[in-house]
Amino acid sequence: MGFQYNEYYNEATGLTVGVNRVLFSEQSPYQMVEVYETDTWGNLMTIDGMVMLSEKDEFVYHEMISHPALFAHPNPKRVLIIGGGDGGTAREVLKHKSVEHVDMVEIDEAVVRASKLHMPHVGDFNNPKLHVLYEDGIAFVKNVKTPYDVIIIDGSDPVGPAEGLFKKQFYVDCYNALTENGILTAQSESPFVEKYHDSIRSIMNATRETFAVAKLYTAFIPLYPTGFWCLTYASKGINPHSEEVLARVNAGVPAIASTLKYYNEDVHNGAFALPNFVKAIFE
Amino acid sequence: MGFQYNEYYNEATGLTVGVNRVLFSEQSPYQMVEVYETDTWGNLMTIDGMVMLSEKDEFVYHEMISHPALFAHPNPKRVLIIGGGDGGTAREVLKHKSVEHVDMVEIDEAVVRASKLHMPHVGDFNNPKLHVLYEDGIAFVKNVKTPYDVIIIDGSDPVGPAEGLFKKQFYVDCYNALTENGILTAQSESPFVEKYHDSIRSIMNATRETFAVAKLYTAFIPLYPTGFWCLTYASKGINPHSEEVLARVNAGVPAIASTLKYYNEDVHNGAFALPNFVKAIFE
Repeated sequence: MGFQYNEYYNEATGLTVGVNRVLFSEQSPYQMVEVYETDTWGNLMTIDGMVMLSEKDEFVYHEMISHPALFAHPNPKRVLIIGGGDGGTAREVLKHKSVEHVDMVEIDEAVVRASKLHMPHVGDFNNPKLHVLYEDGIAFVKNVKTPYDVIIIDGSDPVGPAEGLFKKQFYVDCYNALTENGILTAQSESPFVEKYHDSIRSIMNATRETFAVAKLYTAFIPLYPTGFWCLTYASKGINPHSEEVLARVNAGVPAIASTLKYYNEDVHNGAFALPNFVKAIFE
Repeated sequence: MGFQYNEYYNEATGLTVGVNRVLFSEQSPYQMVEVYETDTWGNLMTIDGMVMLSEKDEFVYHEMISHPALFAHPNPKRVLIIGGGDGGTAREVLKHKSVEHVDMVEIDEAVVRASKLHMPHVGDFNNPKLHVLYEDGIAFVKNVKTPYDVIIIDGSDPVGPAEGLFKKQFYVDCYNALTENGILTAQSESPFVEKYHDSIRSIMNATRETFAVAKLYTAFIPLYPTGFWCLTYASKGINPHSEEVLARVNAGVPAIASTLKYYNEDVHNGAFALPNFVKAIFE
């Protein structure tokens, strides 16, 4: 016998998912981590009652938070992931041959444990280039000794331990932890949900004041509130649509295209087209 | 006291909406038409238990089913809308100054009545250029005497009276009902919902076999299943991204930009970028 998992993003409006059974449920020192076996989306992880990923839809988020930056950078060797405990972002990053070292700084080992146990195909945890550190990412970026080429902010929604991921000082610290050609991407909530508009504005203001290039881009994520999700791209100078980058995308995508279910050359461009009401949130 | 409206697109997974009260509920000769007052999306219309539109999100669908075709055509004068009883598509079409005559062929007058009563700002029913005909659109297109510049298929999902809107003969009839430069657009379901894949394939096969140009494009529609919605663009020759069309889009959008909440020059291009898994459905 199953039950319905509900996530309301706006009063009583939201997502409802048929759940067969609970596979994992643990109140960690930081948050409530749960994994459900669902009717049609495979296993689904939630944190504090918010969907993080399902086995069936995670490809969208993980490809889209990784490849626009990894292809835009001419030679990404060192990558830092803040959060990302399920391992999906690291898996996509590690598809890029130039990458030599990935630090994944996840505050909560329960997330990694739940993913390894119940979503074994999401992570690539045995990859020797991947280094998992159970630390607070916000403190970590303040003390980076060897800078990174790409930093990916793969945190949860702006409540609990992820709240600081939406503040300006964090982006200044990230800027300082990046190399000269450095690029940052960050998950940035849904423009259809009014309570998230402040988060979108915070990230866009913080990155525009700190980085030379700062743009919002989009992805269809069916199990996130409204299905319309934003991500932020910020860099010290590399425009994601310069001729040089587009040439790099066109040359690089074919090598890993067979592993990509969402990202491609067209999506690299099209994802940055913002509807008027989205631009109006932060312009 | 309210209740939850649920639309499951996949077993027990779907949308749940907080409803304050039922405003309209009528079993017409064709289908069950209902309007709910919701918690945060304004009034919401459903047909046979499937969301058609809400006052808050209808702008996406109506702008996106109209403007790509209306801007691509060099001089659209006569427009046919099949379905579209809520009036939102006609409203967007009528923003184009060249348009002289719009025939809206809606099989079910209950849909028009419900919209006029409970969504008074969606339609533009007093516009003298708009002619509402309560007829079967599938039969109507077989007998068109004066051809149209643009035909918009604004029907509901492929069950009940809308089933024929997904069959090849219908697209052949539409082709024959179009002028030399004719363009057609059609709502084409969600690629994240497996049961809709046959519909996407049907429309793409039918339009590719019939028209010179046939492309799928996308829009974020928060209250439709998964939030990821497809539309089809088909034409007798006009490519939606030719230099001529892009010049027309860039020249024409500013005149109505203040009324547009979704569509703009970037979206005109970006919406046609299809993720790999979407292309794989029909290629």
